[in-house]
Amino acid sequence: QKPLETRRASMREDASKEESSLATACLDKTDGLVWEEEEGRATLSLTFTLRSVRTAGFSKIAKVFETFEAGIHHLETRQAKKSKNADDDLDIFVKCEVHNSDVSVLINSLKKVAEDVKTNREERVPWFPKKIRDLDKCHQLITKYEPDLDHDHPGYTDPEYRKRRAFFAGLAFNYKDQAEEMLSWREVYRKLSSLYPTHACKQYLDAFQQLEKYCGYQENSIPQLQDVSRFLKERTGFQLRPAAGLLLPRDFLASLALRVFPSTQYIRHSSSPMHSPEPDCCHELLGHVPMLADKEFAQFSQDIGLASLGSSDVEIEKLATLYWFTVEFGLCKQNGSIKAYGAGLLSSYGELVYALSNKPEHRPFDPELMAVHPYQDQTFQSVYFIAENFEDAKAKLQKYALKIKKPFSLHYDPFTCSIEVLNTPQKIKSTLSQMKEELKNLCFALEKIS
Amino acid sequence: QKPLETRRASMREDASKEESSLATACLDKTDGLVWEEEEGRATLSLTFTLRSVRTAGFSKIAKVFETFEAGIHHLETRQAKKSKNADDDLDIFVKCEVHNSDVSVLINSLKKVAEDVKTNREERVPWFPKKIRDLDKCHQLITKYEPDLDHDHPGYTDPEYRKRRAFFAGLAFNYKDQAEEMLSWREVYRKLSSLYPTHACKQYLDAFQQLEKYCGYQENSIPQLQDVSRFLKERTGFQLRPAAGLLLPRDFLASLALRVFPSTQYIRHSSSPMHSPEPDCCHELLGHVPMLADKEFAQFSQDIGLASLGSSDVEIEKLATLYWFTVEFGLCKQNGSIKAYGAGLLSSYGELVYALSNKPEHRPFDPELMAVHPYQDQTFQSVYFIAENFEDAKAKLQKYALKIKKPFSLHYDPFTCSIEVLNTPQKIKSTLSQMKEELKNLCFALEKIS
Amino acid sequence: QKPLETRRASMREDASKEESSLATACLDKTDGLVWEEEEGRATLSLTFTLRSVRTAGFSKIAKVFETFEAGIHHLETRQAKKSKNADDDLDIFVKCEVHNSDVSVLINSLKKVAEDVKTNREERVPWFPKKIRDLDKCHQLITKYEPDLDHDHPGYTDPEYRKRRAFFAGLAFNYKDQAEEMLSWREVYRKLSSLYPTHACKQYLDAFQQLEKYCGYQENSIPQLQDVSRFLKERTGFQLRPAAGLLLPRDFLASLALRVFPSTQYIRHSSSPMHSPEPDCCHELLGHVPMLADKEFAQFSQDIGLASLGSSDVEIEKLATLYWFTVEFGLCKQNGSIKAYGAGLLSSYGELVYALSNKPEHRPFDPELMAVHPYQDQTFQSVYFIAENFEDAKAKLQKYALKIKKPFSLHYDPFTCSIEVLNTPQKIKSTLSQMKEELKNLCFALEKIS
Amino acid sequence: QKPLETRRASMREDASKEESSLATACLDKTDGLVWEEEEGRATLSLTFTLRSVRTAGFSKIAKVFETFEAGIHHLETRQAKKSKNADDDLDIFVKCEVHNSDVSVLINSLKKVAEDVKTNREERVPWFPKKIRDLDKCHQLITKYEPDLDHDHPGYTDPEYRKRRAFFAGLAFNYKDQAEEMLSWREVYRKLSSLYPTHACKQYLDAFQQLEKYCGYQENSIPQLQDVSRFLKERTGFQLRPAAGLLLPRDFLASLALRVFPSTQYIRHSSSPMHSPEPDCCHELLGHVPMLADKEFAQFSQDIGLASLGSSDVEIEKLATLYWFTVEFGLCKQNGSIKAYGAGLLSSYGELVYALSNKPEHRPFDPELMAVHPYQDQTFQSVYFIAENFEDAKAKLQKYALKIKKPFSLHYDPFTCSIEVLNTPQKIKSTLSQMKEELKNLCFALEKIS
Repeated sequence: QKPLETRRASMREDASKEESSLATACLDKTDGLVWEEEEGRATLSLTFTLRSVRTAGFSKIAKVFETFEAGIHHLETRQAKKSKNADDDLDIFVKCEVHNSDVSVLINSLKKVAEDVKTNREERVPWFPKKIRDLDKCHQLITKYEPDLDHDHPGYTDPEYRKRRAFFAGLAFNYKDQAEEMLSWREVYRKLSSLYPTHACKQYLDAFQQLEKYCGYQENSIPQLQDVSRFLKERTGFQLRPAAGLLLPRDFLASLALRVFPSTQYIRHSSSPMHSPEPDCCHELLGHVPMLADKEFAQFSQDIGLASLGSSDVEIEKLATLYWFTVEFGLCKQNGSIKAYGAGLLSSYGELVYALSNKPEHRPFDPELMAVHPYQDQTFQSVYFIAENFEDAKAKLQKYALKIKKPFSLHYDPFTCSIEVLNTPQKIKSTLSQMKEELKNLCFALEKIS
Repeated sequence: QKPLETRRASMREDASKEESSLATACLDKTDGLVWEEEEGRATLSLTFTLRSVRTAGFSKIAKVFETFEAGIHHLETRQAKKSKNADDDLDIFVKCEVHNSDVSVLINSLKKVAEDVKTNREERVPWFPKKIRDLDKCHQLITKYEPDLDHDHPGYTDPEYRKRRAFFAGLAFNYKDQAEEMLSWREVYRKLSSLYPTHACKQYLDAFQQLEKYCGYQENSIPQLQDVSRFLKERTGFQLRPAAGLLLPRDFLASLALRVFPSTQYIRHSSSPMHSPEPDCCHELLGHVPMLADKEFAQFSQDIGLASLGSSDVEIEKLATLYWFTVEFGLCKQNGSIKAYGAGLLSSYGELVYALSNKPEHRPFDPELMAVHPYQDQTFQSVYFIAENFEDAKAKLQKYALKIKKPFSLHYDPFTCSIEVLNTPQKIKSTLSQMKEELKNLCFALEKIS
Repeated sequence: QKPLETRRASMREDASKEESSLATACLDKTDGLVWEEEEGRATLSLTFTLRSVRTAGFSKIAKVFETFEAGIHHLETRQAKKSKNADDDLDIFVKCEVHNSDVSVLINSLKKVAEDVKTNREERVPWFPKKIRDLDKCHQLITKYEPDLDHDHPGYTDPEYRKRRAFFAGLAFNYKDQAEEMLSWREVYRKLSSLYPTHACKQYLDAFQQLEKYCGYQENSIPQLQDVSRFLKERTGFQLRPAAGLLLPRDFLASLALRVFPSTQYIRHSSSPMHSPEPDCCHELLGHVPMLADKEFAQFSQDIGLASLGSSDVEIEKLATLYWFTVEFGLCKQNGSIKAYGAGLLSSYGELVYALSNKPEHRPFDPELMAVHPYQDQTFQSVYFIAENFEDAKAKLQKYALKIKKPFSLHYDPFTCSIEVLNTPQKIKSTLSQMKEELKNLCFALEKIS
Repeated sequence: QKPLETRRASMREDASKEESSLATACLDKTDGLVWEEEEGRATLSLTFTLRSVRTAGFSKIAKVFETFEAGIHHLETRQAKKSKNADDDLDIFVKCEVHNSDVSVLINSLKKVAEDVKTNREERVPWFPKKIRDLDKCHQLITKYEPDLDHDHPGYTDPEYRKRRAFFAGLAFNYKDQAEEMLSWREVYRKLSSLYPTHACKQYLDAFQQLEKYCGYQENSIPQLQDVSRFLKERTGFQLRPAAGLLLPRDFLASLALRVFPSTQYIRHSSSPMHSPEPDCCHELLGHVPMLADKEFAQFSQDIGLASLGSSDVEIEKLATLYWFTVEFGLCKQNGSIKAYGAGLLSSYGELVYALSNKPEHRPFDPELMAVHPYQDQTFQSVYFIAENFEDAKAKLQKYALKIKKPFSLHYDPFTCSIEVLNTPQKIKSTLSQMKEELKNLCFALEKIS
């Protein structure tokens, strides 16, 4: 038999082909980032030392670059270290772009006129969305679990279900509850909500209560995604965005960076209400939504997303695994006992009971280990990781994220729901300046409560 | 002849009656603020000193409160100052609520058992919206300029226009351009846009260019408010919200506090394209929208709004006047010359030319003076105030705002587009904590650009 | 044979008797902290719920306190949670002080008129210094290693040495180098400085070079403590303060909190230049001083000190152990290899070689474990803990420190070299306000480098 | 008759000659600032645009610099704006140093191979102290008021007084009270302290009380400067530093930047106890010291000092005038009435009475105006400026200071009592990082008081 949740599986999909075709199209000069190499040309970063600059040297170097028709993106002198004659020596940094075939000859030519020539090919920075509108370009689906193709899928033999799925894939926020879906929902809702008081974490329970009160969470009707999205927006700024199916990990995580949660819109097939081979509305509504209404968890989710932007495929894979062991299958301590906060658990009766039993292994929250831990997408996890609390989890995640090599730092602007590349002092200043205003306000508030 | 802009006039309306009926309905206990007195009962803050607490005193005091069936909201001891016998003396603060008729007897009774009895009646804090959804309660209109009533209104004799107005008043984001409206729009657009390069400030020109590029600003079609709203959201987080007419100053300013700009949806009557007795779409689209796309000006606008929340009617009146002399009729210095940024000017050919001529008086930006300066709503202003720049204007406005007496300080949370009352250390901590995370990120960004 | 460093040993001394006599003397009302209980009286914190406050209740409660002549330090009402009748119910918090023998009767009396009575005895907060001048009260010595008493001490049989020690114990910053001391110094200096390039961390080597250049560090003369202290003050604000011998852990750590390092002034006995049963000038000058010239390490040292202020004896013991495994015997990673930064290692040829060999066990830096790890004061350590870097070590230490239970938070003011108890919003505001000014300055600096 | 205070007069002294000889000696490469030009050579900043970099251009430019043997300090490419062919065009910034006589030829040569050549000669940044130790180089005296030279000086005819002055000029913190000095002190102390309760500001009175309690302020003995300095250090971090006489304005203000107040050590001549032509101990002890014990005023004083560092002579003159109208002759509002905080007033019976009378003109605090207002050093001021409060005065001063043109921003590190030039992202980061730690602590403190 198969497990209920398999969003993760979809994340394993080799996505290189589709993705690269997208990325190549995007070249954003305004940020000063090299998003993509030009055809057949390489971008190089070079450093070297020029001796006796005053009398010669510089023009020879310039000649070399001109000979190879190198496009100079940036050239900057830097203080030479440890030279005997500091006044006349210069360290030089050049970022240029030449034809692939000229790279080694150029470097050899440089070595004749300069010392300490060091070079490295620029890594390309994968394109990433910076506004919610950009997410229109981040909707690549994984087709593996389409019932048309997967003969094990519980809906495979049901043409009506397949038709409905096909319909919803092209339609946003507009589905009609149908009798069969209602049956699935009711059964899932009943069984799971009986477990929550003992198995779900405090944040989940608080939000669930609110959702019952304000968003029509109840066993006899499926909540409208639009209402739920509005509810989340008011709590944490997260919003749901209809997804036609499973997104590529890079695209899925990028959405989180903008506080957008891609949500499926169909309900699992009614023949098997307690398990679904892929995420469905039950998974989103009962697993993810309540947790996304918690401020700290929302920040945690966005932080995983932000870490993914512009990261290499290897890092994306690790972040997706980290997502798997936290947002989907995470446990946390609470008043001495262990509770679930992962959506994969909170939407799966069987695994929720199992995860909190003494059968699986429980390990402490450690992003370095979690990001490379082998996971199970065909059965229950054998290991669950336990966070001390969300503040601690957030701090550890950020520490992990800071180690991902990127040539820039990012800032999320909640006013415009957009992401800014903090690559100039001016941009940093502008953010700092806002904080200064806020500090002024907080000082005033402290004065008031004194 | 009449002036073109008269939003201001509407702001003078005596609004006390309608408003109070609204406010009484709202009592929000969770904030710990007394929004409204109960019928016939007064809320008092009392302080007094008890001598020799150990042996007596406290129980006598308690008896007094019990006798008058005072509802004790809060009681707190405070360190007694300057007493001879500090160990046994206590200063006590009590916030309680008693029947109006019992106030003086209660105080006299207290004076018999305590010293230094000081008392003051709590001022009520007018209710204010804290979420965008709350704005549904802030839509009180001023009817003065309805063409039905105002015989000078250019549309008074045109039943078709009055019908269309009536229609739009109940309808949001859905109006159909009509031939007559187009004519008005075209003439206004042509004439004004010829003045902008020499008369409008840099921020306006930058945004106007963007609006032409991305939002269909052009003389032959009226931009859709929905597109414009989406554009603003992406730039500064402001959004337009359809207003059926002129809002009361308190309601209008409260919207700004949530980065919501109430926008009219009809076009001035075509018989008089160059002037309108009230704000219309031309005024909003050509006057306000471009400036709201500038980050600093957007913050300035929101800051006026935030200052208004919970303020007394007198303060609201002053803020509305300040709004008048800035957002509507403001000028600013730019590279040595003076430019317009006020929407009232930028949507009125005649006054724009006049304001930048040497006919009117130009005075430096000073909120204290501007807030009480007499304004003209029947003709051009005789005085315009000139900001050094928006940063300076913002700083001066904030200084002004801090002097408005309120028992709390507010924080706008851009993630949830909501306002929080910072009246506990815990709430301040939570905001500060976010800043700490942001600081960490900025440190990292500085590291990166090093 | 015995180990070279034994400051640690001294820290194990049971200090309770001497200490408590000191602490009792100090009662500082201005901070609002209960430093010490009055003789025979207990300080209690009570919370309870009063039902139907309006008609009765409060006066009955007051009567109870009056009956037992309880000194009320603070009484405060709090919003009652979850009661059916929120308007009339009140939760009350009282901090009072009664005679020890009355505690249980008082509580029982309360239970008759109130519900949910919860009580706990206030823990006393040990006194701690808040200014450098206060350190005059923190000079309690441990006498264990006085050569007069310890027959194993290398100077035991040398009356001249004992006389000199006695002299220095009463004298600050004024010792005369003597021939024997010079011999010890030279041998120690020569042998250790040959090891540093390969065994000491980068921060140590940088500072050592500076000390040679500016403070007369060389094998043929012993640096003047006063010069060294001035040097440290300019680098990190640390200063040396003469100590007549080994201080109690609580007093020693409290000094660090004020960036004061208590330094011995005598040189180890010349019969045994390579080992000393207690810290001596060689240990201070070669072990501690260079590291204290590094900003990050200085902060780390102060942070241990700050954590100790007002902590219980159990926590002090743990912090002293943490100090042992870091400041005295710490190792750290540097460019892939392991280096020493602990003063105990850097002033002991034998243990320095041993610690970096593959003989001892190397474990990762983890304050929770280090604080309770058994240590060796009779031989080399069997385990050394390796920090990733000082930033990480600092962060982990702070996290550890935040878990130490204290009723307040502290702020070190570097302008006045004093410690402030942050127990009111006003004090927090004042610190935040300074940060705001600093932020303004940094914004300006970013503007400048743009 | 002459006025009592004349520190200001000394500030008018033309100091250019002495000063420049000092400054030339100091060249500090580590900060990356050009403190001084080399003999006969000019430092230039050039910007220009190169077209078609790929095929030529760069080497021609390099040749030009080589021809003139220009020392290239820094060369950096920048993104070219608005060119038709952005890929091949480059804007270049060069900072170089050439012989004075070659400047114009170099520029003309550049114009032949590049476009938009803009150039400006670097302004030299006057040297300034960065540590307290550096103040040893900032002790240039103004000799105008030496009694030997000034026949109006009350001590001119008294050889004994002149001898004592000569003695103290070479001696620090060590003077012996003598009978005559005591007489002067007693009379001054008595008369002035009778005025303080009604004429001095709250901050002064608070500190004066403390000085009486802890520093031996009383009519019968002159307080020891060393005690007073220690007292100030504990309150605000300020310290007194003996000055042999009147310092040049640049040197005097630079001391303030390091929280060091240069203090004279002699007492006015006893023949004229109520007036002194120059600052003396009475002026320092009764005028300056109490105010320097107030945190906000101390910051204000340091801020004037920080503004002066590296400023031009013209700016120094303006800051000295600002100092004159604030620290020496400032008034401020307090609870509706006007009080004195200026040391010149608080140490002069006559002017203190006069300043608070209705005879002189009172104007609002406005640094722009104050900095250029003509002042009186031969009689009482005709105008006094009134601060709203110190927070406001500080804010206005900082705004003024930000307008002083300097190529860098400064940071005072209170741990090491030193000044850092914030000219790299790394240095800004390091300061920001400290703030982050402090924020963490404040969050924790807020948590605690919740």
